[in-house]
Amino acid sequence: MNRLEKQINFIMEVDKLKNIIRQTYLVDGSRKEGDAEHSWHLALMCAVLSEYANEKIDVLKTMTMVLIHDIVEIDAGDTYAYDEKAHDSKRQREMAAADRIFNLLPSDQAKKMRDLWEEFEEGATPEAKFAITLDKMQPVLLNSGSDGKSWREHQVKLSQILQRNEMTHEGSDVLWEYEKKLIDKNVGKGNIIDA
Amino acid sequence: MNRLEKQINFIMEVDKLKNIIRQTYLVDGSRKEGDAEHSWHLALMCAVLSEYANEKIDVLKTMTMVLIHDIVEIDAGDTYAYDEKAHDSKRQREMAAADRIFNLLPSDQAKKMRDLWEEFEEGATPEAKFAITLDKMQPVLLNSGSDGKSWREHQVKLSQILQRNEMTHEGSDVLWEYEKKLIDKNVGKGNIIDA
Repeated sequence: MNRLEKQINFIMEVDKLKNIIRQTYLVDGSRKEGDAEHSWHLALMCAVLSEYANEKIDVLKTMTMVLIHDIVEIDAGDTYAYDEKAHDSKRQREMAAADRIFNLLPSDQAKKMRDLWEEFEEGATPEAKFAITLDKMQPVLLNSGSDGKSWREHQVKLSQILQRNEMTHEGSDVLWEYEKKLIDKNVGKGNIIDA
Repeated sequence: MNRLEKQINFIMEVDKLKNIIRQTYLVDGSRKEGDAEHSWHLALMCAVLSEYANEKIDVLKTMTMVLIHDIVEIDAGDTYAYDEKAHDSKRQREMAAADRIFNLLPSDQAKKMRDLWEEFEEGATPEAKFAITLDKMQPVLLNSGSDGKSWREHQVKLSQILQRNEMTHEGSDVLWEYEKKLIDKNVGKGNIIDA
């Protein structure tokens, strides 16, 4: 198989990401969103909000990172943020998925994409920190927009959201301040359990 | 409204792009794809295939362009590629949409995004040409993957596809050569009418 055929195989394979459904509803509450459209939303947020990153970031690198950050879920599935049991086996399932899916690409690109995914998972660089901030903030925006539809369905507690957002401020203090206010507003409305 | 609030308003508004449905089926044929996941697919194709651009391109600019290229369809709707009547009023509907939606952003970003969209529409720069190549190639990949499901439903003719792809080679000769072979294969299979 030549280089272009490998690249096209990868592009065809990742089409499956469109059918991995998350627990977050669209703002209009009509349905839950898919991983591919979630990733699109993060990439666009990256274009619009990069000025708020705490540290200077490479925007292209961050954008590419969010475009691929969920691809492993094609095999591993979406693990709901507040499903603690599923989180135990998440890392192992996702590593196997990364091995299979990124290696559809020519080896230089497979390594580049795999490294970028690992960097996101580790969350240590300015780009990974900002990508994580966007990934945590986006479902809060959508949940707040749909008047807490998914939070109420899952009876999510404030303490769970705060724990999940432990690192959000590391990517952007400004965005975390905004998100915190949104969370407080939704506690006030009873969309999030104050516990 | 402060700068961040305007940016968040834009991000919430463009959530509607997820509900604009195209005529192309996913590779597995299970359903038609939405504009947001289509845009995600183009951005990822941009990351993987940029080496084939005829001219040197700014990858971040091209990626941002494909992320926003369909946003006007939130108001204007998706115009099916082979619906000639709807194409008459398309430009006017999309201009009004661009006026409304991009202007939700702070004025500097509104201008930047609007200019980027116009640049895509005009198709004159290396980035716009390559973005157009990806935008034309992606539905051909998906249609071919689903054994021509959308082509057969709409009884699409080879001459229509070739006309629609008149500019595809301008962004990338290599990708157009690949796409042409795929199109020929699908004519051979009867998925595209040889006329």
